[in-house]
Amino acid sequence: MSSPPIRLPAGVRDFLPRAAARRRSLAGRVMEVFEAWGYARIITPVFECADVLERGLGSDARASAIRFVEPGSGEVVALRPDITPQVARVVATRLADVEGPIRLCYEGAVTRLAGEAGQREILQAGIELVEAGEPAGDAEVLAVAAAALAASQLPETRLDLGHVAPARFVLGAAPDDAARARIAAALARKDRAGLKIAARTLAPAIAPLAEALVSLWGPAEPTLAKALALPWPTDVLHALERLRAVMVAFTELADHPAPPLTIDLGDLRGEGYYTGVRFAGYAAGAPEAVLRGGRYDELIGRYGRAARATGFAIDLEALAQAQRSLGQPLPASTAAVAVHGAGAPAFARALRAAGVRAVTASTAPTASWLRAAGFDSAALLDSRELVRADDTRRALDTADVRALVTFLQENPCPS
Amino acid sequence: MSSPPIRLPAGVRDFLPRAAARRRSLAGRVMEVFEAWGYARIITPVFECADVLERGLGSDARASAIRFVEPGSGEVVALRPDITPQVARVVATRLADVEGPIRLCYEGAVTRLAGEAGQREILQAGIELVEAGEPAGDAEVLAVAAAALAASQLPETRLDLGHVAPARFVLGAAPDDAARARIAAALARKDRAGLKIAARTLAPAIAPLAEALVSLWGPAEPTLAKALALPWPTDVLHALERLRAVMVAFTELADHPAPPLTIDLGDLRGEGYYTGVRFAGYAAGAPEAVLRGGRYDELIGRYGRAARATGFAIDLEALAQAQRSLGQPLPASTAAVAVHGAGAPAFARALRAAGVRAVTASTAPTASWLRAAGFDSAALLDSRELVRADDTRRALDTADVRALVTFLQENPCPS
Repeated sequence: MSSPPIRLPAGVRDFLPRAAARRRSLAGRVMEVFEAWGYARIITPVFECADVLERGLGSDARASAIRFVEPGSGEVVALRPDITPQVARVVATRLADVEGPIRLCYEGAVTRLAGEAGQREILQAGIELVEAGEPAGDAEVLAVAAAALAASQLPETRLDLGHVAPARFVLGAAPDDAARARIAAALARKDRAGLKIAARTLAPAIAPLAEALVSLWGPAEPTLAKALALPWPTDVLHALERLRAVMVAFTELADHPAPPLTIDLGDLRGEGYYTGVRFAGYAAGAPEAVLRGGRYDELIGRYGRAARATGFAIDLEALAQAQRSLGQPLPASTAAVAVHGAGAPAFARALRAAGVRAVTASTAPTASWLRAAGFDSAALLDSRELVRADDTRRALDTADVRALVTFLQENPCPS
Repeated sequence: MSSPPIRLPAGVRDFLPRAAARRRSLAGRVMEVFEAWGYARIITPVFECADVLERGLGSDARASAIRFVEPGSGEVVALRPDITPQVARVVATRLADVEGPIRLCYEGAVTRLAGEAGQREILQAGIELVEAGEPAGDAEVLAVAAAALAASQLPETRLDLGHVAPARFVLGAAPDDAARARIAAALARKDRAGLKIAARTLAPAIAPLAEALVSLWGPAEPTLAKALALPWPTDVLHALERLRAVMVAFTELADHPAPPLTIDLGDLRGEGYYTGVRFAGYAAGAPEAVLRGGRYDELIGRYGRAARATGFAIDLEALAQAQRSLGQPLPASTAAVAVHGAGAPAFARALRAAGVRAVTASTAPTASWLRAAGFDSAALLDSRELVRADDTRRALDTADVRALVTFLQENPCPS
């Protein structure tokens, strides 16, 4: 009988040491930013009762959740497609008595049903800021997003802002769902001609506003000025004024240099989930947004606490792939030495005590083994030689561990 | 219509900031130990094709795996109950051409069907050492286990060693499965009288060896000497000699002070999985073993590479609970300050640049808010006051951020 092949499910993968190091380093740096801004990390479970998790999911995320019957309890559970609803649940239940603002952050894998050839398991990190008002809360979250982008060390970062009010007003004015869907589709494609046709179903006063949405994107100040000059109803104008206030507060709060702000009032992503300012973060090397967030004042209420909130999630996998596509180097690691010969255990111990990774080797390591194992050097105590991963050799003073440590620090051997 | 209650599935939980900080700190310290010993971290997926994962699971783990049909592909997948088979798969496939020894480590959540009221999601970390021989490989893995126990900062740690050979010989001599099961059950209970009865089914030369197993546990040297004095067949005696060689090599390799070694030749856990030396680690505050490992020379072969291997996994949750039950303090964190008043953004930025966690607050924070949020202090710039989480107040020189940082470092406010 032939056994089935060794394979992974579509959309999930292993990360070998180099790829894992890049991802762990990014996760560590992003979490350091979150903590520097006073966000406290929580850990939530990989799966939850599906009905509980789904209370807090937007329609997209709900459709992409992987559900199954958990054999132990017979309950329908779902692998989390998003961590935000879990944080909302924690805030509304276990932290019900804690007054805001509450600042929480997380990092972990989320799982989604694959669309096309997409990844199903995604490493993400994010923050949630609960019960901080507008514009200060929105500006703080944006400032943290800017700092997280900076920590990724990717060039050409940019934060793209929007507000749900203008598009919601236009979509709400559509006569029926079909008309609404056509307008939304044309907007999502930034299809000016298509939108002109779809907008014919709107009242004559509203159609031009719908058509304007498709071009209300670009540098923040002029785009916002252009939007404010249009005949929106009062509540939309107020929303746009609040967006401007968020931009001003962001400039005050953010670490320098802050990434440039752009605006896109036609971006409908997360429509039905966000309730105010929303934003996305971009960087060179990443074809899509690497982070998305915004205000969702109704989410925590679905778990029983009327609390306004805002936050964002950053896609660590997208950051890692962008770093790689730009040829950015792997995070530096401390030197690693394989020690062979009489006295190897004590020599390796002394190296570890000095902050150098070290093991003993029962046979003399070759340069090709060093490269494959990610080690810089082999210390051959019997022949008093240091063999390096680049195949060079030099004399080794086995009585002077300190000198070896200094040499390794000053002469890293790229592995 | 009343909606179903907000609840978590049995056996999974959230970790709030303090609990999460303890677990992250433990995970970080244990992973640092693994990396210091030259182990490279890999990341493997949360679920895999069930038939692939199960190749590498012992019978216990196979019974505890949560399986479900993955809706995207229609494949039966399983949440990983153990990461070792994933590492074995990676070594046999993507690292097929890499010569040993290969040193890999991991950290992540594993999921198991709940036995009784047990936890289903367990945070664990571990190492695998591939193609390192006996006794050096076993001794190295034991030495890393000792260092990981030391990193947990728990007192009264101990490593308990065994070898599968003696019990396997006795169980292999049983006339049938029922007799074998009775002997195994009595051994697992260390039930001397029960074993005496169960051993009656064995040949007269073997029954006394079975009975001896129940008392072959205790301090390493005398227990091993007692075992070696019994009339075992040659291969069992050789196995016990190799166990002694592992102990000697461990003493050479391990960081000082090494935890004491004990021996238990009647421990059957992992029987059918391990193929040589096996061990468990214990610490004060933990009722059960906090780590388990050993040699499993047949595992990687199940994925198509004939490679001997040894390793262990450490239960981070058990370490965290032991720390807590002993009243050990939470990991120290840097000071956190909420800044209120004119100039707050720049003041908070200066604090962050100096390594202090800092945010702006739009209302003046109270001491009770500080405590709940895990902040030490509020800097009130308008009234030039520092309010601390313990409700004390002091004057604040708003022009001297450096002095504030020094004060906070020298006067931590327990939160």
